[in-house]
Amino acid sequence: MADARLPFDVTDPLLAAAAWSRLAEPGDRAAGILVGALGAVGALDRLLTGGPAPVGGDTPAWDRARARWVPRLRTLDPRRELDVIARLGGRVVLPDSREWPAGLADLREAAPFCLWVRGGAPVAPFGRSAALVGARACTSYGQHVAAELAAGLAERSTTVVSGGAYGIDAAAHRGSLAAGGPTVAILAGGLDRPYPAGNADLLEEIAERGALVAEVPPGTAPTRSRFLLRNRLIAAMTRGVVVVEAAWRSGALSTAAHAAALLRPVGVVPGPVTSMVSAGCHRLLRESDAVCVTDAAEVIELVGDLGTDLAPPHPDADGRERPGAPPEGLDPREARLFEALPLRGRTTVSRLARAAGLAESEVRTALAYLELAGLVAQEAGAWRRSRP
Amino acid sequence: MADARLPFDVTDPLLAAAAWSRLAEPGDRAAGILVGALGAVGALDRLLTGGPAPVGGDTPAWDRARARWVPRLRTLDPRRELDVIARLGGRVVLPDSREWPAGLADLREAAPFCLWVRGGAPVAPFGRSAALVGARACTSYGQHVAAELAAGLAERSTTVVSGGAYGIDAAAHRGSLAAGGPTVAILAGGLDRPYPAGNADLLEEIAERGALVAEVPPGTAPTRSRFLLRNRLIAAMTRGVVVVEAAWRSGALSTAAHAAALLRPVGVVPGPVTSMVSAGCHRLLRESDAVCVTDAAEVIELVGDLGTDLAPPHPDADGRERPGAPPEGLDPREARLFEALPLRGRTTVSRLARAAGLAESEVRTALAYLELAGLVAQEAGAWRRSRP
Repeated sequence: MADARLPFDVTDPLLAAAAWSRLAEPGDRAAGILVGALGAVGALDRLLTGGPAPVGGDTPAWDRARARWVPRLRTLDPRRELDVIARLGGRVVLPDSREWPAGLADLREAAPFCLWVRGGAPVAPFGRSAALVGARACTSYGQHVAAELAAGLAERSTTVVSGGAYGIDAAAHRGSLAAGGPTVAILAGGLDRPYPAGNADLLEEIAERGALVAEVPPGTAPTRSRFLLRNRLIAAMTRGVVVVEAAWRSGALSTAAHAAALLRPVGVVPGPVTSMVSAGCHRLLRESDAVCVTDAAEVIELVGDLGTDLAPPHPDADGRERPGAPPEGLDPREARLFEALPLRGRTTVSRLARAAGLAESEVRTALAYLELAGLVAQEAGAWRRSRP
Repeated sequence: MADARLPFDVTDPLLAAAAWSRLAEPGDRAAGILVGALGAVGALDRLLTGGPAPVGGDTPAWDRARARWVPRLRTLDPRRELDVIARLGGRVVLPDSREWPAGLADLREAAPFCLWVRGGAPVAPFGRSAALVGARACTSYGQHVAAELAAGLAERSTTVVSGGAYGIDAAAHRGSLAAGGPTVAILAGGLDRPYPAGNADLLEEIAERGALVAEVPPGTAPTRSRFLLRNRLIAAMTRGVVVVEAAWRSGALSTAAHAAALLRPVGVVPGPVTSMVSAGCHRLLRESDAVCVTDAAEVIELVGDLGTDLAPPHPDADGRERPGAPPEGLDPREARLFEALPLRGRTTVSRLARAAGLAESEVRTALAYLELAGLVAQEAGAWRRSRP
């Protein structure tokens, strides 16, 4: 039933959780502790009745916390906010829902009270997930790599999570969508006005084919502190975070720091050292345990299961061999001998011994092996390379 | 005096060391053990007289080793080779010389018997040294970075050592020379015919202003196995190795592996993940303890002394702040409050409390601090941002 002071049923768990998502700023630990101890309904009741600090709580801290929540009490209107999200085709997901991302438990008392969601994709993906984050003012290189990684992850049934911002975030979402994958954008402000406005079409498409997620109710502005706190959700809701491009000081580094604190692996895409927006990536490589990743398979190895998701070895990216270089698979002595053979023409065992620095008996043994391997041939008592 | 079978004084330590540098291939451990035990003169005598294996040696191994040295005995002519190096203005440096690089001792029995040197720069630099190595077929990015790093190292009295090859090696030598630094090229073949011929002018300039070094005598061809063994000298003679660009399989990776085995630090310059010639660099970052380096100061930190050679923190490479973002140095509560202040116009304490999610008492405390800091001003009972 409606409380005398509040225009909604304060005993409804959904309304109470929605109310807490407005009363407390994201990551407010005092609110998290209170709601964790009493539930959203009980916590709201304790706040309204002005009861004592919850068991184990500290009275001055409780008083300070109450003082920051009380000014917002009279702005509460969760029924209207639920109407707004419903009109947008969205819903509110509560912590006891099967859809609640298990990873959020790692945030403990800083976990959100509920998630405001638009879109049909599961917020807690069944398969793997990886966050791709990075600079808003990225380069075309970063944009290209983010899109390629995202497409590769989507093809490998890995949900790409990002923050819906310009630059790397947008390229990651687009790459995932282009490969037919679902993608999840976790926003810092209310879902009624997805930010930034310049990404409106993209965010609309994510709402249709993936999901938009926020921990704050409709009508909440995306302030800088909410951006920084939103980053902890990106880290907690995924199995690992990959930074594609980031300047020396960049919000993406805070996402990486949250991931590390939550024991999620952090991947870093390197770039030219001449690029300002790779400086933060290289900083992570130097100053943290972040792992260098260069393709989707390496991201999967990072966020995947030990032993089953190893990236395949790279194809030989060199391929430039000197003419006459020994083929792979020879032991060092055979390789040395093979090299000592002239590219054209024949030579003798004693000349080969001197040229290769081997004993004549070693030369004969190695020549026998190379002959069996079809690499050399004997001709009139001398030896030459086989013609390919 | 001249041995019956050899046309030179086999009791002359210089001639004997020069002879061993031709008899044994680089890194021949049996020769290293023998010369280490008996000296170059004694070892040559033991080889000529066919005496037993040296103390602690194993007879079959000794017989095999002798069998690979004996074929070269009749090609020995160290006096002629010393004439050649002298005509080129060069010299031979022996292990007991003050000029002998101390780091070569770390190679133990695989150390060279002598160094063939052209050029006035000390082979064992008094200050710091760093090897810059990388792909022959490098990109203009790699060339640019190698030259920049080398110039920065030269300016910081750090000798740049490389292999004299095309690509990264040449750019590193050139960068050091351009900044007035000495630079040392360690070659895989004899110094009478510096390889590659296309770098002849550069190698000549290095001989004039730095030093060319080889462990093999004039007349020795630079074979692939000698290139790979030369790499151990680059690692042993420097305080650290930096790989600028390297393909997935690259000789530069062998230099890095030698450095790691010799407990020298390895630095890696990252590059675009789309570049084949950065794939080996990124591989090192993933698979080894190599450190990401992006400028000369970071290389100095890598090869320098703990505690005294720390790279300065990067300047803020971002610099893009949102309008109205809080200045540095505020605590999180003050920053949140500052952000809640409208960009233009005034607001009240109670509105600020709701907007920032703070208690009114906290708002008042924080406002007082911000006012002292000159960031906010009071006007007719309301608060606004100070005009810059």
